[in-house]
Amino acid sequence: MKRIAVDMDGVLADVYSQFDRYYTEETGKVMKHEDTIGRPEGEAFPNALDYVNSPGFFRSAPLMAHGQRVLEKINQQYQLFIVSAAMEFPNSLGEKQAWLNEHFPFITWRQMVFCGSKDIIKADIMVDDHFRNLDVFTGTTYLFTQPHNQLRDPGIHTRVDDWLQLEKLLLS
Amino acid sequence: MKRIAVDMDGVLADVYSQFDRYYTEETGKVMKHEDTIGRPEGEAFPNALDYVNSPGFFRSAPLMAHGQRVLEKINQQYQLFIVSAAMEFPNSLGEKQAWLNEHFPFITWRQMVFCGSKDIIKADIMVDDHFRNLDVFTGTTYLFTQPHNQLRDPGIHTRVDDWLQLEKLLLS
Repeated sequence: MKRIAVDMDGVLADVYSQFDRYYTEETGKVMKHEDTIGRPEGEAFPNALDYVNSPGFFRSAPLMAHGQRVLEKINQQYQLFIVSAAMEFPNSLGEKQAWLNEHFPFITWRQMVFCGSKDIIKADIMVDDHFRNLDVFTGTTYLFTQPHNQLRDPGIHTRVDDWLQLEKLLLS
Repeated sequence: MKRIAVDMDGVLADVYSQFDRYYTEETGKVMKHEDTIGRPEGEAFPNALDYVNSPGFFRSAPLMAHGQRVLEKINQQYQLFIVSAAMEFPNSLGEKQAWLNEHFPFITWRQMVFCGSKDIIKADIMVDDHFRNLDVFTGTTYLFTQPHNQLRDPGIHTRVDDWLQLEKLLLS
């Protein structure tokens, strides 16, 4: 059974929707989607760091479409680990675990990993929206499309635009 | 530079001293060291699970002797990661990170990993007090002596009784 490491933010959790919501709450303006494309999150949303450090940011993040259903099937056919680079945001650790427990009750604590750098992860497949995580991984890599990576050539990684594409690629 | 994964509880943090303290606070009795030898922690201390789920248990854990000094040297000669199977105890995540930040300020968040199962860890060397973590690891393994493992044959793992022994074995 192959082992797959799946990222949280930008893959399971729709953090851009959260950024949009916090941005509007802060400024009263609506962020145009096209203004986020091809820019790092912290550049598109100048106060992104304040947002992610706000209590509740991760706990109340919406789900990415189809992620729950497809991940439950993946969990039956793969050795699944959820791997989040959560250490940068200490307050997020408890929130992220509670979020996973609520939305993905089939994932046990044994399958969760919170780390800083992902180059310590040993798996066959990695799904992530950040090149920095995929580039240090030696297995099969899927780049999950998010505005910040949308304009970049995926290079050696396979780009997937949503969970329906992942479903076709990963599940028989 | 070789990568080394070092456990927290029972290796950096003296959890037995905590168990002793909580046991005495609860019962008014003193646990005899010989009564903990060769027994799982939860058997030696029947309410161990309540202790570890108490706020402050991990945050106030004492340090294992010489661990700070030797780990700082290891951090200079190895690619060091602190890997703790912390996911079982959700309340511990923030405490453990705060504890590391206080006592090991030279360790950055990039070097911390909280997981459930350690078989996802890719490293060259692992130091741990539990066979279940070392047995699934493919690199060089050091079994750190703690009362629960004291009577068992280390088998393919190298037993070390303290940080001074680790210092001799790992540092030139």
